[in-house]
Amino acid sequence: MKMEDMVLISVDDHISEPPDMFKKHLKGSELASAPQFHTSPTGANYWTYQGMTMTSVGLNAVVGRVPEEYGMEPQSLAEVRKGCYDPKARLDDMNVNGIAASLNFGSVGGFEGSRCYHRAPDKKLALVHLRAYNDWHIDEWCGYDRGRFIPCAILPTWDMDATVAEIERVAAKGCTAITVSENPSKIGLPSVHNAYWEPMWKALTDHDITINLHIGSGNAAPHASAETPIEAWITTMPMSISTGASDWLQLEALQRYPDMKIILNESGIGWVPYFMERADFSHWRHSAWTHSGFNGTKPSEVFRKHFMTCFIDDAFGLKNLKEIGEDMVAYECDYPHSDALWPEVPEWLWKSVQGLTDTQIDKVTHLNAMRMLRHDLFNHYTHEELTVGALRARATADHVDTTPISTSGAAPLAAGEKARRVTSGDIFRMFEAQGRVATAE
Amino acid sequence: MKMEDMVLISVDDHISEPPDMFKKHLKGSELASAPQFHTSPTGANYWTYQGMTMTSVGLNAVVGRVPEEYGMEPQSLAEVRKGCYDPKARLDDMNVNGIAASLNFGSVGGFEGSRCYHRAPDKKLALVHLRAYNDWHIDEWCGYDRGRFIPCAILPTWDMDATVAEIERVAAKGCTAITVSENPSKIGLPSVHNAYWEPMWKALTDHDITINLHIGSGNAAPHASAETPIEAWITTMPMSISTGASDWLQLEALQRYPDMKIILNESGIGWVPYFMERADFSHWRHSAWTHSGFNGTKPSEVFRKHFMTCFIDDAFGLKNLKEIGEDMVAYECDYPHSDALWPEVPEWLWKSVQGLTDTQIDKVTHLNAMRMLRHDLFNHYTHEELTVGALRARATADHVDTTPISTSGAAPLAAGEKARRVTSGDIFRMFEAQGRVATAE
Repeated sequence: MKMEDMVLISVDDHISEPPDMFKKHLKGSELASAPQFHTSPTGANYWTYQGMTMTSVGLNAVVGRVPEEYGMEPQSLAEVRKGCYDPKARLDDMNVNGIAASLNFGSVGGFEGSRCYHRAPDKKLALVHLRAYNDWHIDEWCGYDRGRFIPCAILPTWDMDATVAEIERVAAKGCTAITVSENPSKIGLPSVHNAYWEPMWKALTDHDITINLHIGSGNAAPHASAETPIEAWITTMPMSISTGASDWLQLEALQRYPDMKIILNESGIGWVPYFMERADFSHWRHSAWTHSGFNGTKPSEVFRKHFMTCFIDDAFGLKNLKEIGEDMVAYECDYPHSDALWPEVPEWLWKSVQGLTDTQIDKVTHLNAMRMLRHDLFNHYTHEELTVGALRARATADHVDTTPISTSGAAPLAAGEKARRVTSGDIFRMFEAQGRVATAE
Repeated sequence: MKMEDMVLISVDDHISEPPDMFKKHLKGSELASAPQFHTSPTGANYWTYQGMTMTSVGLNAVVGRVPEEYGMEPQSLAEVRKGCYDPKARLDDMNVNGIAASLNFGSVGGFEGSRCYHRAPDKKLALVHLRAYNDWHIDEWCGYDRGRFIPCAILPTWDMDATVAEIERVAAKGCTAITVSENPSKIGLPSVHNAYWEPMWKALTDHDITINLHIGSGNAAPHASAETPIEAWITTMPMSISTGASDWLQLEALQRYPDMKIILNESGIGWVPYFMERADFSHWRHSAWTHSGFNGTKPSEVFRKHFMTCFIDDAFGLKNLKEIGEDMVAYECDYPHSDALWPEVPEWLWKSVQGLTDTQIDKVTHLNAMRMLRHDLFNHYTHEELTVGALRARATADHVDTTPISTSGAAPLAAGEKARRVTSGDIFRMFEAQGRVATAE
């Protein structure tokens, strides 16, 4: 295999929702009461909904900028690449990066909607608008190219009947993935161990829909202190999902639903062998008093069977692929966030898969994602049309411009301040000034 | 090498402080105002100090129990092995377990004193009693056998002058290790990035004293929810130190004090190669805007140079010893806590070092700990006297009894309740009923 022959699926990318997202999916009072897009006098974009203001339009959408401007500050769609909110431009950006297909999370309401629909006081309306979000996401964004965009719906988990109905509704549209909070107890719902969730487990497995748990969508990635350099937080952010992984690994429902499938998006993979070994040790050592329910299996067997982990750049993890399980690892790009190696993903990836067989490369680059997400890439395109080489040739023909841009967005440090280490506190203060919520992004 | 030939140092064990600990080190009003040991009408032990009550006498001191009674509930010294509070009995328990030498943390006031001296309203008195704690720990406990106990002092970090003076005082006693909170901002002090700590860094490196950061002594090991089975928390507890590791890795003082030495006690090791790789990636990817200060070195180089990590049972980590750095890994037993493999440490360890060379085995079992802690084991005893085989022969001659004991201590589940999965909430409720603080133990 050559670098150009790889076929790449990314199971974790992001969209900055476009202003007109609800237009084709609602009308009359339902459209009028939907989240509304605004531009402030200073040019910042934000959304309002049921008395709430959601300001992180751009989130950490810094792809394509010069590295000096990776500082989490974009506040308007004018400051981010068009690929963040326009599916045609996104395909261009995927082509130039050699990405065949992509699963995307929303931004404005959080990855799984908990900062918008889940917080809304009028839950009847919230349900209408959450459904419209899914219609936009599935029919319009992913509908732009159903081969290359993999739908991932959000769910009204505050209402279990509505959740089951929405699962059935999106399943009928061919949606095979959903995302929920990786710790619903942090958004005011029962923990995943509560019987409350039983109808959801059943509906998801009945329809063979995969659960996506994105880092930061429940358990916070902890900042040690306001004085801590922000790089410390960036370093531990992916691994912070180990709290959620450990929580879900104990899910008794996994015993009853052997086909339940879970993806830990943006998890990283290199820590996973240690984690599984530690889970086995803890179970062996403590089950006589904890009565934990693994029914004679080992936690590591349960993890390998149900959980897929994902990597951006993870040489140590790939070196130990056998220990993680070569069928349960997938690539992710994280476009348009700052860790995304756009537009040089193929070069980075090719370096780190050098120790793998061609079969293993195919598995981690696309086959595992296709299987876990029931996404039949080659129903839509031929293999030859989706290779890194073919997609990049198309990008060249289309003159996709990847020149690093400088948008002169506000930096975390004050204007004129001498360069010094940026801390968690600097980011908190910047977010506060922007009216944004400082959680794991 | 044979199993019996190994020489084992444990860099993380624990003491349940004995009732008379201050007796030989204070007198008059200073003794009268020191922490006082009590027994409740139900037989529970607790300490009182300056209006505070500290109840976790036994902490998780379940060593030697039947596994059904590992449930974190011991409340009295009568319920724990004598080795928890008596140095002679501890040596017996070390002998039978093949442990040549041990570094110990206290229990009642937390690992580094923050639940006792740091919270005390009268800080002048607290300083007197903290010093007396160190005198007891260094002169009496470790003084019982200075070859086999490695002193680890606590510091009055609320007062930097007193901290420097105490470092000088314990250094003069030959103490080569101290422990402080791995996140002082959680106990009301400035973060480690604050200039506040400068005199401490200087004094510690001037005296070549090693910093020990125990898991849970600052950053909490997170419980996902009260309904989460407690095994989830047990699983992630060691890895929770990654927040602290990432915080300290950014410490600018490491550039100025190239000899600063840090041990992450109870950290585990298998996740470390991933962590270092991720720290390097984060630095490479973000330093243009974070201005993080690694002066041209990589975070992984800084980590390998300054930080030692420790393992209880960690086959994957040992398999990847080269990636971690064979000079910066040490064994730990965690006696008398529930993860301790007492009295079968040699058998467990021997299995997991099978892939190592004899030189590597010597390094991880004792040479690295000796170097990092400046503890010259063989100044006190010959090599032959301290092997697993020699110590176990002594235990046999001394008839050390290791028969598992049942103390019928209160289990986390209510009396008569049918066995079911023990949750974090069960532990919170048990601790609350016992008046204990539910933090990482």
